[in-house]
Amino acid sequence: MTEYIFILADSELELVPPEIVNERCVLNNARARGKPPEKILLDASHHHPAFGKLPDFERRGRPDIVHFFLMLCLDSDLSAEGKLKAFVHTRNNDVIAVKPETRLPPHYPRFVGLIESLYEQRVVPSRENALLELRNSVPLEMLVDAFKPDSVVVMNTQGEQAPLEQKFAGIQGGRVVVIIGGFSKGEFKSDLSKIKHEVVSLGPRQQKVWTVTSKVLCAIGNVSKMPAPPQPAAEPEAPVKAPRPSKSRRAPKKKAE
Amino acid sequence: MTEYIFILADSELELVPPEIVNERCVLNNARARGKPPEKILLDASHHHPAFGKLPDFERRGRPDIVHFFLMLCLDSDLSAEGKLKAFVHTRNNDVIAVKPETRLPPHYPRFVGLIESLYEQRVVPSRENALLELRNSVPLEMLVDAFKPDSVVVMNTQGEQAPLEQKFAGIQGGRVVVIIGGFSKGEFKSDLSKIKHEVVSLGPRQQKVWTVTSKVLCAIGNVSKMPAPPQPAAEPEAPVKAPRPSKSRRAPKKKAE
Repeated sequence: MTEYIFILADSELELVPPEIVNERCVLNNARARGKPPEKILLDASHHHPAFGKLPDFERRGRPDIVHFFLMLCLDSDLSAEGKLKAFVHTRNNDVIAVKPETRLPPHYPRFVGLIESLYEQRVVPSRENALLELRNSVPLEMLVDAFKPDSVVVMNTQGEQAPLEQKFAGIQGGRVVVIIGGFSKGEFKSDLSKIKHEVVSLGPRQQKVWTVTSKVLCAIGNVSKMPAPPQPAAEPEAPVKAPRPSKSRRAPKKKAE
Repeated sequence: MTEYIFILADSELELVPPEIVNERCVLNNARARGKPPEKILLDASHHHPAFGKLPDFERRGRPDIVHFFLMLCLDSDLSAEGKLKAFVHTRNNDVIAVKPETRLPPHYPRFVGLIESLYEQRVVPSRENALLELRNSVPLEMLVDAFKPDSVVVMNTQGEQAPLEQKFAGIQGGRVVVIIGGFSKGEFKSDLSKIKHEVVSLGPRQQKVWTVTSKVLCAIGNVSKMPAPPQPAAEPEAPVKAPRPSKSRRAPKKKAE
């Protein structure tokens, strides 16, 4: 069985940075939500008036991308079969580990609230039931190294364009890391040259993170349903058996809130 | 070329119904948003304390499902190639037509605000630039009939389970309607017996609307990239040409807000 580690890399998820924490739009938003301004997530939609003061302002503050990514991963067949683990890596090298049995709130504002709790408590909903866990100062290459993967695939528009099924069917090894950029504009901030990887492209069209994620999930899902490559048969006439459907090893889902 | 009409059917999108419009949670939420309570969307997350008074309360108030569905459809290859149109049909037989060039807000609260504007103005952002348009009193069968489809596929857990690519490759005709249920629990409310259709299942596991949508989009995307079935060749030795990548006929995206 191949295990897949999906990493949303350099994703634009962070608390409101100190340089704009006293801007009016941030203060208003924090007051409306009953939270201190330094404990709320940066959000391009709410805090846009202050974005001019931030470097890389055109891509920052996109927790919605992280939300979409996780919702797709956690409900995938791969996750249901216990073959997928999802991680979020951010522009500040924070890493969020998400247990496969996690039931995230589909409602975006509640997801934001949950991640804010995570930044405060380091683990949610509790230490005993650590569905989401936060670590700081983990560069992408350190995160990838920790899995000792057999293969690493980076999804990028600039790369070899090949049918995804074909690509993933050809990947060897029991543990495959798939890296998807968690940003809407620009390039990876992490230094990918520190990671031995191959680049796979879905073509020149800039596609949303949810489109890329769903295509990769579908492709791997299809590959994992393919019959294993036939072994040299002792009896050449022996009929090829259809693969038996694998039993779901899904653990019951647990609410993260 | 086959054109695909994706319909999210019986989706749980509606304004706050009169029977709970004076409930405290609704009034508070409306006041916080600066809108009259009868003009805000019902939301299971915000208005849950009042849900006991609503029939079908366990499934209602899920604009997030509609949001996910549309975000996936609008960024799909099919949509980029001008082969997909997306429609939202609701529990109250409201129908929202969404132009393929629409750029919806990825931020959920802004999406909600946009749909509330749509319920007020019938069309957004303007009559001259009608990216989203609302019609009332259109039962599902009437909506489907209006397209005069060659085939109608309903995604349902209770149905023939077949590999999706194979299923969609076998579907004949230039216009195919795909119906996906826009609810998290229960069955279709619309009477599907009034629509000539075939049911396709992704298996017994209850999957989220975004998972179903992304699987169908991927499958049709793969089918549409397959070479056309070979014609009886005059020269049996003639090499089969690889299909040329089709040019994108995507119109520039337009902001709906």
